[in-house]
Amino acid sequence: MTIRVTVWNEFLHEKKDEAVKKIYPDGMHKAIASYLSKSKDFYVKTATLEEPSHGLTNEVLDQTDVLIWWGHMAHNQVDDQIVLEIGKRVREGMSVILLHSAHASKLMKELTGCNGSLSWREAGEKEILWNINPNHPITKDMGDYFILEQEETYGEPFGVSDIDELLMISWFSGGNVFRSAWIKNIQNGKLFYFQPGHETYPTFKNEKVLKIIENAVRYLKPEIRKNNIENIWQKEPIV
Amino acid sequence: MTIRVTVWNEFLHEKKDEAVKKIYPDGMHKAIASYLSKSKDFYVKTATLEEPSHGLTNEVLDQTDVLIWWGHMAHNQVDDQIVLEIGKRVREGMSVILLHSAHASKLMKELTGCNGSLSWREAGEKEILWNINPNHPITKDMGDYFILEQEETYGEPFGVSDIDELLMISWFSGGNVFRSAWIKNIQNGKLFYFQPGHETYPTFKNEKVLKIIENAVRYLKPEIRKNNIENIWQKEPIV
Amino acid sequence: MTIRVTVWNEFLHEKKDEAVKKIYPDGMHKAIASYLSKSKDFYVKTATLEEPSHGLTNEVLDQTDVLIWWGHMAHNQVDDQIVLEIGKRVREGMSVILLHSAHASKLMKELTGCNGSLSWREAGEKEILWNINPNHPITKDMGDYFILEQEETYGEPFGVSDIDELLMISWFSGGNVFRSAWIKNIQNGKLFYFQPGHETYPTFKNEKVLKIIENAVRYLKPEIRKNNIENIWQKEPIV
Amino acid sequence: MTIRVTVWNEFLHEKKDEAVKKIYPDGMHKAIASYLSKSKDFYVKTATLEEPSHGLTNEVLDQTDVLIWWGHMAHNQVDDQIVLEIGKRVREGMSVILLHSAHASKLMKELTGCNGSLSWREAGEKEILWNINPNHPITKDMGDYFILEQEETYGEPFGVSDIDELLMISWFSGGNVFRSAWIKNIQNGKLFYFQPGHETYPTFKNEKVLKIIENAVRYLKPEIRKNNIENIWQKEPIV
Repeated sequence: MTIRVTVWNEFLHEKKDEAVKKIYPDGMHKAIASYLSKSKDFYVKTATLEEPSHGLTNEVLDQTDVLIWWGHMAHNQVDDQIVLEIGKRVREGMSVILLHSAHASKLMKELTGCNGSLSWREAGEKEILWNINPNHPITKDMGDYFILEQEETYGEPFGVSDIDELLMISWFSGGNVFRSAWIKNIQNGKLFYFQPGHETYPTFKNEKVLKIIENAVRYLKPEIRKNNIENIWQKEPIV
Repeated sequence: MTIRVTVWNEFLHEKKDEAVKKIYPDGMHKAIASYLSKSKDFYVKTATLEEPSHGLTNEVLDQTDVLIWWGHMAHNQVDDQIVLEIGKRVREGMSVILLHSAHASKLMKELTGCNGSLSWREAGEKEILWNINPNHPITKDMGDYFILEQEETYGEPFGVSDIDELLMISWFSGGNVFRSAWIKNIQNGKLFYFQPGHETYPTFKNEKVLKIIENAVRYLKPEIRKNNIENIWQKEPIV
Repeated sequence: MTIRVTVWNEFLHEKKDEAVKKIYPDGMHKAIASYLSKSKDFYVKTATLEEPSHGLTNEVLDQTDVLIWWGHMAHNQVDDQIVLEIGKRVREGMSVILLHSAHASKLMKELTGCNGSLSWREAGEKEILWNINPNHPITKDMGDYFILEQEETYGEPFGVSDIDELLMISWFSGGNVFRSAWIKNIQNGKLFYFQPGHETYPTFKNEKVLKIIENAVRYLKPEIRKNNIENIWQKEPIV
Repeated sequence: MTIRVTVWNEFLHEKKDEAVKKIYPDGMHKAIASYLSKSKDFYVKTATLEEPSHGLTNEVLDQTDVLIWWGHMAHNQVDDQIVLEIGKRVREGMSVILLHSAHASKLMKELTGCNGSLSWREAGEKEILWNINPNHPITKDMGDYFILEQEETYGEPFGVSDIDELLMISWFSGGNVFRSAWIKNIQNGKLFYFQPGHETYPTFKNEKVLKIIENAVRYLKPEIRKNNIENIWQKEPIV
């Protein structure tokens, strides 16, 4: 069965910053979409901030099973109403993958009630991602750990409260640790947060990073999707 | 150490409906506040919808450790900005107790990302509340179960997704079950949902119901409260 | 990929009790195995208490992905060493489905540290199984609830402590509720407990019950299996 | 109300190894007990492996609210029957604190079904313990992190599966991370695991380490204790 994936990217760093443009000339969304499109059971689209409705009309959202989200410098430019429409569909069964700096997005707060506060440092530090759940469908191919030679440092305490499935914990050479891959269930939908992906590093060309995103798309696909979930008046008792 | 409790009530049913007024002449908030005030370590205030700022100015919220919330017919009249101010303080460490129909409040969605959908029936059915966690500080005094002779029926599936501490499950004579007492952690704060409390029954005069609310206040009191949690730039590595 | 399923049954009631024999002339294990064998991607075997090694030699266990277990009157006759061998393989990635009275089996305690205490009553009461997680791969086909006209009553408090994925809660006409379908993760393996299945009722001929078991087998299949997990001496640091 | 604490130690390293004896001349149990005894609401006893019944007769266990456990080189010398007696009392409501190498104790497996596998290295590396739950009663006094200049390195993947409350994650200078403070609920009791405490370092003289143990004792104290929990026959329905 086809899984419909929409890869959303703010797509501003890649236009404004020559160093970023060099790594991702077509934008990070295209790098991710291009990899995912190799899976014949995925139907992959992209959308970006500056398109009308950010490329995320209700029609697009209705036909999306898993929405991937990268945002950073323009969190506040994202339309509140579109965030609400996404939230509504997650409660119905759609899933969302929040990448890297999306921890501070409106979508993070809409879905979790938490603001994703953390400490951070741009210092090109080494990151080791430890696989604490090696029998999980998302991390099964990762071995015990893998290394990113340079990433932005993110550190605990991470303002997310209890998470439902913790998959990876990262070590940074400057002394920080971070819960870097995890799932929270949001009513009928799922939220997968995955920390790597600073715009100045070629993280979305790393085969392990891409494989985790691919595995996550499969794991997060909705089994069912219930439209317009609301309170239901049951006039008659069951017995 | 004093725990500062604010009991908020929509306080409309008690004014408009003679049957409700008879049970709670001063409002449900006064019934709850009056019971809690017997605890010498609690400092108890009340607030209602029709007061200016719903009685919930920033100053009141800043001096509240545990906010108790009853709302039903006027969820939509609650000011969005006040909901955001409450959410902000929960992320900092304040706790909230949502009673009964507050499952559909703006506050429920602000804090959990879920809309609390359920099925319901006003049929005066018997409810048996089963204590599934008898060694928990909130339910330790309840024995294996207690009975409410009449309550509004609430039924699963309950749109709340994974919860962090499940304390009670209710049986209704019409054939429904419901997760009726539970906790979700919201960043530094806690949300306790407790289902009994339809306005047409004297539920908030029941000693067991009141004792659970009292125990919850103690369990939910913040250990610390961190103001203005946000992303923190750590210029220097730890090592 | 083939999933290797071994259905284990105590197989005593069906030999000793005429009423049970009438329902399951070949034993409950055969009823379950016969249904599961219709799935072409399952390789299904059976094993019973009175076979040598209870039919569960190390070779059989090594070639089992999901072990289904029904036991009741002879929990104490199960060989301690075989329980340990099963526990070892669950830690490595094998999964177990405990049916009905297996809540009190040696295997339950070996895997969870809990003794599965509950209250019970053989009264032919009606059971309504509520689906509290309708978007889960195990319960996606169940609608909001299904009914068993007669089952043994099991009641909370259920001695299992926190569970990792709660899927169904049951209502019994005598006033009890019970967490009737749930998962606990045990190191690399998973334990799925499913409550229906008293020997005197034709529960394992019910299509919904059988479908849940089928769905559970697919969900519980190991992604990987790590042999001989133990402490590992890492002489050299990673960095 | 008095909390009855029993500090158990294998007490072999301190007798056999001069370097260890120098740090803990009376044994690690005495260092911990001496600190805890300053709390006037604690009644503290000690027990060791080589005492009759390891100092843990049924009478001692019956009068213990929280049992603290340090073991390493002699896990296999611990009497199986005593482990079972401890497990029985945890199911009834007693709590256990497992320190450091107790991750591989018989008690760990008895209580969790997991074997606590991990990777390790004795290299005197620096450890930074990050407080990921700063509003928890156990870690409220810790700030964002604290440092141990030298500890034995423990690394993920840690064979414990899902844990109920994750409090701290540690960073080690050699590149490892480890879930170093957490709680699992075991029926009516609680298990708190805390990783620091290798015998060759003065860890149990560190004020932060000792404070966490003190806070944990308070948090883990039983609210109630139910003797002889077992299946209960309810002859009569509730309704």
